[in-house]
Amino acid sequence: MVNLTPNPSFSVTVRLRLPNRAGMLAKVIQAVAQAGGNLDAIDMVERSRLSVVRNIAIDAASTEHAEQVVSAIREIDAIDVLEVRDRTFQLHQGGKLRVEAKIPLRSQDDLAMAYTPGVGRICMEIAQHPERVYDLTIKANTVAIVTDGSAVLGLGNLGPAGALPVMEGKAMLFKEFAGLDAFPICLDTQDTDEIVETVRRIAPVFGAVNLEDISAPRCFEIEARLQEALDIPIFHDDQHGTAIVSLAALTNALKLVGKSIADIRLVINGAGAAGLAMARLFQKAGVQQVTLCDSKGIVSRQRTDLSSAKQAFAVEMAGTLADALAHADVFMGVSAPGVVTPDMVKAMASDPIVFAMANPVPEIQPEQVRGIVAVMATGRSDYANQINNVLAFPGLLRGAIDCRAESITESMFLQAAVAIASLIPASELRPDQIIPSVFDPRVAPAVAAAVQAAAREAGVARQ
Amino acid sequence: MVNLTPNPSFSVTVRLRLPNRAGMLAKVIQAVAQAGGNLDAIDMVERSRLSVVRNIAIDAASTEHAEQVVSAIREIDAIDVLEVRDRTFQLHQGGKLRVEAKIPLRSQDDLAMAYTPGVGRICMEIAQHPERVYDLTIKANTVAIVTDGSAVLGLGNLGPAGALPVMEGKAMLFKEFAGLDAFPICLDTQDTDEIVETVRRIAPVFGAVNLEDISAPRCFEIEARLQEALDIPIFHDDQHGTAIVSLAALTNALKLVGKSIADIRLVINGAGAAGLAMARLFQKAGVQQVTLCDSKGIVSRQRTDLSSAKQAFAVEMAGTLADALAHADVFMGVSAPGVVTPDMVKAMASDPIVFAMANPVPEIQPEQVRGIVAVMATGRSDYANQINNVLAFPGLLRGAIDCRAESITESMFLQAAVAIASLIPASELRPDQIIPSVFDPRVAPAVAAAVQAAAREAGVARQ
Repeated sequence: MVNLTPNPSFSVTVRLRLPNRAGMLAKVIQAVAQAGGNLDAIDMVERSRLSVVRNIAIDAASTEHAEQVVSAIREIDAIDVLEVRDRTFQLHQGGKLRVEAKIPLRSQDDLAMAYTPGVGRICMEIAQHPERVYDLTIKANTVAIVTDGSAVLGLGNLGPAGALPVMEGKAMLFKEFAGLDAFPICLDTQDTDEIVETVRRIAPVFGAVNLEDISAPRCFEIEARLQEALDIPIFHDDQHGTAIVSLAALTNALKLVGKSIADIRLVINGAGAAGLAMARLFQKAGVQQVTLCDSKGIVSRQRTDLSSAKQAFAVEMAGTLADALAHADVFMGVSAPGVVTPDMVKAMASDPIVFAMANPVPEIQPEQVRGIVAVMATGRSDYANQINNVLAFPGLLRGAIDCRAESITESMFLQAAVAIASLIPASELRPDQIIPSVFDPRVAPAVAAAVQAAAREAGVARQ
Repeated sequence: MVNLTPNPSFSVTVRLRLPNRAGMLAKVIQAVAQAGGNLDAIDMVERSRLSVVRNIAIDAASTEHAEQVVSAIREIDAIDVLEVRDRTFQLHQGGKLRVEAKIPLRSQDDLAMAYTPGVGRICMEIAQHPERVYDLTIKANTVAIVTDGSAVLGLGNLGPAGALPVMEGKAMLFKEFAGLDAFPICLDTQDTDEIVETVRRIAPVFGAVNLEDISAPRCFEIEARLQEALDIPIFHDDQHGTAIVSLAALTNALKLVGKSIADIRLVINGAGAAGLAMARLFQKAGVQQVTLCDSKGIVSRQRTDLSSAKQAFAVEMAGTLADALAHADVFMGVSAPGVVTPDMVKAMASDPIVFAMANPVPEIQPEQVRGIVAVMATGRSDYANQINNVLAFPGLLRGAIDCRAESITESMFLQAAVAIASLIPASELRPDQIIPSVFDPRVAPAVAAAVQAAAREAGVARQ
C-alpha cells in the first residue's frame, strides 16, 4: 500500500523514562521523526534527580507504522518505554455517549413532579391530545440512528455490534453540530421487512430517523417504505449526506476551473447507496453526462447483471473505470482504496477535479496527484477539502425537525447544497478551500434554514 | 373522592401584582390557607413604588383544587393574578432527558479518533472480538426501558406516546440512583410476538432491558421469552420491583408488630403484574397464607374465570375483598383508588399492616386510618413509608450489569429485599420508618452488592 500521512486515528501515547540530562528528549524526537511519526503533545509525568517520565503522543500512518515508531524509540540507549497506549482505543473505553436528566432529582418534590404521581397528569394529557407528545416529551429533539451494520464505513458487513461505535460517533456529531439528541439503534436483523417493521414500532419516541450504514439496494426500499409508513422525516445519510456535500463542493470546484455544470462529464465510481444517490441528485442539479461505474466497470446497457437501481443510470458505453475516466472532467469515488492510478487522472480532461471519498483510505492519495489535479478532495479530516457528511446531516435534520416536516424532499437536498456552497464566497475560493470546515459554526444553521424554506415551499412543513 | 393531601404533583406557580403596602402578602397567604393550599417558595419578581410582583408556588390536592385556590386569590381586592403556571407541566416542557457526548469534538484530531477514520479500527476490533462491545461501546452501562404503554401507572392503556413521560422519568432515576444510561423504547404494538421480536432485534446496543408498564398476563410471557432469547438481564420492574420493595418493608413491619412471616395471613388486592409477582416472591420468602384478590373478589378455586397465572394462587375460600381482609394480618394493595374502607381495616387482625400502593391514589388514604393501623405504607412520595420501586431497580440492574449476569434469578430478588430491609437497624425502626428513603445513598450500592453475590451463587455471573 502507498504511504499514508500520519494521522490521529493511528496515534499512540508512549510513556517513557529518560535519564534526567540534556539531549535525551532530543534523541527521542529525532528517532520518531526518522521513523516517520508525527509528534503531538509531550507531557511531563514526574521528574526525579536521576530520571524524567514523559507521555509523548505520536501520530502514525497505520498500526504497523506505530509499532515501528515505538521500536525506534526502544532502540535508544538508556530510555525505557514504560507503556504504549492506543489513543483511539483509549478514547472509546466505555463508549462515547451518556444519557442525562435535564432536571435534578434531589427531593421528594422533584420526584413527585418528574415521576409518580405528577407524571401521570402528563401521560393523560398526551393520551388525550396526541400532538402534545411534541412539547411534553423528548420526541421533538430526538433522532434514532438506525443501522443493521451491513455496510459499515468502507469496511463491509460488520453486524450491529461492530457498527455501534460509528452510530455513537454520529450521535456525538448530531449533538455537537445541531443540538439534537440522537441515540443508536443497531438492529440484529438484515431483513428488509424486519427492519421496516422494527423501526416503525420504535418510532413513537423519535422526531426523525437517520438511517446509517445499510447496504444498497435494501437501503432504498427501507427508506421509501419507512417514509410511507411514518409521519416523521426519514433520512439515509450515506445516500443523501454524501450527495449533498459533494454537490456543494462540486459547485465551488467548477467555479475555480471555469466549467459549467451542464457541460461536464462526471464519473462516479461506486454504485452503492452513496453513488446512486449522487447520480440522482447531480442530474437534478443539472449534470447531463453522468457515467456510473461499479466494481465491474461502467454501468452499461450492454451488461446483464444490473439491479434496477443501476439500470436507471446505464449508458451506451461499456468498459473499465479507466475507460470512463478518459477525458472526464470530474471523478467522484465512493468505492474502494487505491482503485484510481495517477495515469488514469492524467488521462482526464484539462483541470481534472478528483473527489476520492472512500473511507478510511481514498481511491487515490492526494500525495500521488499533486500538480496533476486542479481540485482534489477526500473524505478524510486530515487532508484539505474534506467531503464530510457532517456538513449536511445535522443541519438537515435540525431544519426538518424544527418545521416538523412530515417527509424529506429532493428540494431540501438541493437547497442544502446551495447553502453549504454559498458559505465560501468567490473571494475565498481556492483549490484547497472549496467547502467550509466541519467546524464552521455557520454551516448547520445555514443548512437548517435552507431546509425549512424548502420544506415550506414543498408543503411538507407542519409547523 | 376523599380529600387528598396537597402535594407538588398538583402545584402551580401564581404570578401576582400586589399593592406595595403592608399586609397585602398576608392576605394572600391567608386566602391560600383557607382554601386548603400549601405554600411553597415565594419569590420577588419586581418591585416599584406602587406595586410588587411575586411568584408564589402553591401545592394543591388536585387540578380542581388548584383552581379553587387561585380563585380564592383572585377574590382579594386590589390583587391581580398575572399568570398561573402548572409546575409539573412546566417541568416536562421539552422532555426530561438529553443525550450527551462523553468527550468533546472540538478539533479535526477529535473527529479523526471518535469518528472516521479512527472509529473504523474500533468497529473492526468488535467485529473480530465480539465481547469487546462491552468495553469499547456504551453497551455495558446502557439499559433499554421498554414499554407498550398498555398499563401506564394506574392509568390504564395510554399507548406508547402516553407512556413516554414515565419512561423518561424512569431513565432519570436509573441515572440518578445507579449511574446507568437508560433510554426509552415505547413500542407501537401490543402484540406479544411483535414485542419479543422487536426487543430482540434492538438488543445489541443494550446491556440490560427493563420492561415497564406492560399489562398482565402478556408481561409474563414477554419477560420469559426475552430472557430465553437474549443473554442480557431482562427485568420487569412492575412485577419484581414492587415485590422486592414490599417484601423489604414487610420484613421490617413484622419486626415492629412482633409477628413471624410464616404465621401471617396476607391479602394481596390486585392480580396484575405486581400482585402476582408479589404472591410468588412472598411465598419464596416464607409466607404460607396468601390470599389474592382481583376486581371480582378472592381468587378462589370456585371461580371459573381465572387465567393460569391466577389459578396458581387460587384458594378454597370464596368471597369479596372485605371477606378476605377479615382477621388478616397484612393488606397489600396494587389495585385501584379507594377500594378499602376504614371498616375493612378495623375488621383485620390486631396490629394490622396496610400497604396501599395504588398510584397515584392509594386504596385507602393514610388520613382515614390513623390510629387504626399499626403500620401504614403507600406508593406515594408525600407520605411516610413510600414503597417505591426506585429502592430496588437501579441497584438491581447495576449489580446485574456489573457482573454481566446472563439472566435474573429469584434469589437476586430475595437478597435485594434483605439488603434494603437491613438498612434500617432495629434501633431506628418505627411505624413511620420501615424502609429507607429513596434518597438514602446506601440503598443502590447495597442492592447491587447483594445482587452480584446472588448472581455468583446462582452461577449466572459471567464476570
